[in-house]
Amino acid sequence: MRTNVCEMLGIDVPIFAFTHCRDVVVEVSRAGGLGVLGMVGFSVEQVKEELDWIDAHIGDKPYGVDIVIPQKYEGIGQADPAQLEQKLKAMVPQGHHDFAAKILKDHGVPEWPDDSEMGLIGWTEATARPQLEEALKRPNVRLVANALGTPPQEVIDEIHASGRLVAALCGKIKQGLQHKAAGVDIIIAQGAEGGGHTGDIGSIVLWPQMVDAVAPTPVLAAGGVGNGRQMAAALAMGCAGVWTGSLWLTVTEAHAEPAQKEELLKATSEDTVRSRSWTGKPARMVRNDWTEAWEAPENPKPLGMPLQGLVSADAIRRTSRYAGVADTRKVIFNPCGQVIGQINQVESSKEVVFRLLNEYVDTLERLNGLLDGKA
Amino acid sequence: MRTNVCEMLGIDVPIFAFTHCRDVVVEVSRAGGLGVLGMVGFSVEQVKEELDWIDAHIGDKPYGVDIVIPQKYEGIGQADPAQLEQKLKAMVPQGHHDFAAKILKDHGVPEWPDDSEMGLIGWTEATARPQLEEALKRPNVRLVANALGTPPQEVIDEIHASGRLVAALCGKIKQGLQHKAAGVDIIIAQGAEGGGHTGDIGSIVLWPQMVDAVAPTPVLAAGGVGNGRQMAAALAMGCAGVWTGSLWLTVTEAHAEPAQKEELLKATSEDTVRSRSWTGKPARMVRNDWTEAWEAPENPKPLGMPLQGLVSADAIRRTSRYAGVADTRKVIFNPCGQVIGQINQVESSKEVVFRLLNEYVDTLERLNGLLDGKA
Repeated sequence: MRTNVCEMLGIDVPIFAFTHCRDVVVEVSRAGGLGVLGMVGFSVEQVKEELDWIDAHIGDKPYGVDIVIPQKYEGIGQADPAQLEQKLKAMVPQGHHDFAAKILKDHGVPEWPDDSEMGLIGWTEATARPQLEEALKRPNVRLVANALGTPPQEVIDEIHASGRLVAALCGKIKQGLQHKAAGVDIIIAQGAEGGGHTGDIGSIVLWPQMVDAVAPTPVLAAGGVGNGRQMAAALAMGCAGVWTGSLWLTVTEAHAEPAQKEELLKATSEDTVRSRSWTGKPARMVRNDWTEAWEAPENPKPLGMPLQGLVSADAIRRTSRYAGVADTRKVIFNPCGQVIGQINQVESSKEVVFRLLNEYVDTLERLNGLLDGKA
Repeated sequence: MRTNVCEMLGIDVPIFAFTHCRDVVVEVSRAGGLGVLGMVGFSVEQVKEELDWIDAHIGDKPYGVDIVIPQKYEGIGQADPAQLEQKLKAMVPQGHHDFAAKILKDHGVPEWPDDSEMGLIGWTEATARPQLEEALKRPNVRLVANALGTPPQEVIDEIHASGRLVAALCGKIKQGLQHKAAGVDIIIAQGAEGGGHTGDIGSIVLWPQMVDAVAPTPVLAAGGVGNGRQMAAALAMGCAGVWTGSLWLTVTEAHAEPAQKEELLKATSEDTVRSRSWTGKPARMVRNDWTEAWEAPENPKPLGMPLQGLVSADAIRRTSRYAGVADTRKVIFNPCGQVIGQINQVESSKEVVFRLLNEYVDTLERLNGLLDGKA
């Protein structure tokens, strides 16, 4: 099922894998799709290390990177990273830090082993920009995706000038039109089912409307694709490919601790919730004691983005690292979509790509059979 | 695209039209689909009148009826209709009635012209059972669908004994399995996008999971089908047909006042909300002053089902009848799915059926083209 995005990016099949694991990026790109490295949370040094590794293993295959450059935050001017971070830190009430610390303590989550601080890495233009500069040094990076809003115009222009394509996520038609107007090359339409930051409109309604609204700009379907039947549905509705995330959280190559993968493998589609408790904006994740704690009426309410990220930054790294210790798994940060309910066994990344393709072909054969009158 | 439900029901195409308008039932069945008359809100006398009319106009085509027989309500025993209604009415605080009346008054909604009272018609087994008996006298009624939960076993047995099929809606895998275990013949899986009572799981995730969970019982896709691309998506994911509702609200044959249709035609997918303000259970509808009023923290909270239905019964009939008067349209009861955003012009029911079929065939052709390598 070659579509126009395959031509645009030099890939064989329009399967895009959003992941924070370099191994998954490499495996998916080598299997004919496009691996996209989510860089939020990585320091520039880490970004360099990950991209070096990818470049050393991916051969001549293309890949992408995903950044978070919002246009602006309400009431916060742009500043140099250090100044900005100080300014933001001063805005977080101590009670929020104490509340987060108590949740972790109550669940036996070990302290971080050194006194390094988690900053606001990658959640602002000031911190994401150096990540981008590093990525643009790499010839195999063919796509830069922005996870939150339309990228600033100068960022789009810089990426285009370097010969790469720009993609951007959205959950509303209005945002898709803004992306298109700004020169974004590929629109990623994410339905409410999706993991991470997500809106209200379901994929089955959002995808075809977006396709029509931004045509001829290609649309990737995000939010709810876990098998080849769902991929066929996306292409049937006019999407040029699928943008998948949850699919790659539990693959063999994913870096998470076994306890974290177990929580994901056992989650049903009803076990996710849209919560502001980690980033400050509604994001879908596995419901657990952390998300419930921030919902309870008597407790502090999540702050906005990026402030809540300063409250949760330490919790993110500790729960991820110590997922298997005590009750850590009950307060872990596990962003994923409702499609997680379909993901119940560990596969390799390559097996996932080939499974999707096989299921896709079987689906089309079945649909053709129905048209021929076979029930 | 004939599927097994076509054989089961003697229809040409697996398009199911849920509607409260007898004309739509007839037109869709005559076009080769299955019209399904939603009977909640109709007295037995009205049911008789509507079914007489359908029988006189539908020729030899089959049709269906949709009832609401919940298993039970918490804390409310079954009783004869009059006793039950008295018991329920006594449970509604006067403040709720006053609040509802004030909303209507503030929007200039005229009073009902006579002093007839709106009862709890069709929302309990006691009131739905006589509707069912009337429907089962009609030979062309081939399907009885229950909109809320698994029907009581004796109801399923009675329908089966009369040679009809039973369908039931659900939004969770667990409910679908309960339906199947009870002997329901066709499962209608409605995603969160859908209109009326609806759950949390998006269609793109729910449908294929339901298909796998209840196989070989056929699944109809509800929640988000407004064109042939979405229908192709549903069948791609393994559904045996589509259950549509919003599509028929604005057709030529639909009985609503022009002002009500205008509100629906201009609504975008972002203009719907899941609200408990009319029936007591979360149902999707157009967001307006009524739904907002019941959300405001300082106002009364919606009661549960069926009590909130007693609070809103008078508002439902008045806002529907006087949709064009003063600001009535801002407080009207307008249940619909997110797909309403795609419905922007008036078509005839027959045109809708044929549009879906044409779009479906075009979609399959396009997918086959992609497989052949045409971008």
